[in-house]
Order: sequence, then structure tokens, then C-alpha cells
Amino acid sequence: MELPPELVERLLDEWPVARLGSTRPGGGPHQVPIVFARTQGVLFTPIDGKPKSGRELARTRNLRAHPEVSLLLDHYDEDWRWLWWLRIDGRARVLTPADPENDPEAAPALAALRRKYPQYRDTPILTQNPTLIAIHPHTRNSWCSSPDHLP
Amino acid sequence: MELPPELVERLLDEWPVARLGSTRPGGGPHQVPIVFARTQGVLFTPIDGKPKSGRELARTRNLRAHPEVSLLLDHYDEDWRWLWWLRIDGRARVLTPADPENDPEAAPALAALRRKYPQYRDTPILTQNPTLIAIHPHTRNSWCSSPDHLP
Repeated sequence: MELPPELVERLLDEWPVARLGSTRPGGGPHQVPIVFARTQGVLFTPIDGKPKSGRELARTRNLRAHPEVSLLLDHYDEDWRWLWWLRIDGRARVLTPADPENDPEAAPALAALRRKYPQYRDTPILTQNPTLIAIHPHTRNSWCSSPDHLP
Repeated sequence: MELPPELVERLLDEWPVARLGSTRPGGGPHQVPIVFARTQGVLFTPIDGKPKSGRELARTRNLRAHPEVSLLLDHYDEDWRWLWWLRIDGRARVLTPADPENDPEAAPALAALRRKYPQYRDTPILTQNPTLIAIHPHTRNSWCSSPDHLP
């Protein structure tokens, strides 16, 4: 059965982790775990500052070629009555704001990420290679094992 | 940094859940959480008996068109030092054995699944529409936040 709509909304605001699925240039699938925050209906995930290697990350290279993405939120439990998943399909844009803290799109996204993740108090976001992925959802699918065993 | 090779082997044998990433016929990504068991180097995931709807599941339809798949194992923790992921890329085959319990490939796969998941004592596998996905790994990628915070 599907997840209740109000639970879907809460998960999209509060669940801490998702898996970003994308398509490689050659057509094969790619997946990576991400953190994300929702603001104004758009899901944002940051690509943290990393040592510059001169090579674009696979996930942004994939998105430029194939903007269609899948976001999977799920829960595993030894008691299979507690299993559920939520899949959001959407289209992704790669944002590389020159001045993220003052960018009209990036600044609220960064604020939402800092509100959701206290970890960013100690881990700077976007200190190098400032990049955000913006995901515009268009389709939701969900499943749960039992209506009496929901988060 | 990457996960140590001996930990990768242990995770492939023992970690209970993964996300199966595949490519839809139109080129977009698809993801779904799965259980899996490894035997003789091949990863098997069952498609549990479901009411016959006359419609093939998206995951098997995708695999027939695009056999390349991605399996993502990961761990999220509020303490980001404990974050890690392991991604296995491979090629998938859809098995629909007529007599799974006596099939030379399906029978050991089912035995491995029953050994790994005591839940299958109460949940029959493959009672209807018997289907297994066999994944032959060809590439591993992994990442962990800290070598002192591993499972």
C-alpha cells in the first residue's frame, strides 16, 4: 500500500538521507547517498567542498547529460512490517552560484540545509567548488508494508 | 577514502538491504530497495509473490531493456563520521525458473536468502510469479568518512 500523503510531506521535510539515482552518459545507472532539504517545493542537495581534482563529479556530469533523476527514501528494519519506501522522480539542475550566500536560489537552499542538519555547524557547506543540485519533483511513488507500522 | 576490501566482502555477505538502480526504457533512472544474498560471487534478489496483476514489474521490465544495474549499500548516522557507502555495478539477468526449488541456479540462491533472512521462515519466497534477479558484479566503488568509524 502507499504511504499516507501527509506522511510523504513530513518525510520530504524531515527524513535525513536519500539516494540520488541518475543515468550515466552511456546509459547505465548511478546511485549515491545524499543529504537534502526542501524549500518552496524544490529539493536541494549540496556537493560539499572537496579538494579540487580537476575532474567533475560523476553525479553532476550525469545530470548535465540526463537531467531526469530519482530520489529514494526508505527504511529497513528486521521486522519487515516496518519497511517502507518513497521514490520521487524529478528533473535536476546543477547550480554553481558565484556567490552562493547571496544568490536568490542558493541562499535559501543553504539556509534550509543548515536548519535541517545541525552537523553543518561544524562542516562548512560549499567552501570550494560551490555546487548545488536542485531537483524539481514531478512524480511520487511509495510503498509500505503495514499501515500500523509507519514512521 | 575507500572501505577496506575485507569489510566490502563482509558487507556483501551480511548487510541486509541495498538499493537497486536501473535504467527505464526511456532512459530515466529507477530505484527500489531490495534484500539480497550472495552465493558463488553472484548477488540474488527475489521478487516476492504478489497478486498477479498481469503487468510486469518495472524493475524486471527495465532489466530486460537495460541489463546494467547499480547496487547501493550505505549507512546514515547523525554522527557523520560513521557515514559510508558501497556501490556495486553489474549486469543483471532475470530468472523465471519453472521449478525454483530444483533449479540449479535458483535453488542455491533461495537457500542463501533463507540463511541470511530468518524473516523468510514466515514469509514465503517465490510463491507466485517466481522471479529472481541475478546480478554479476563488475565494478566496486566505496567511500567512508573515517577509517576509525566503520561497521
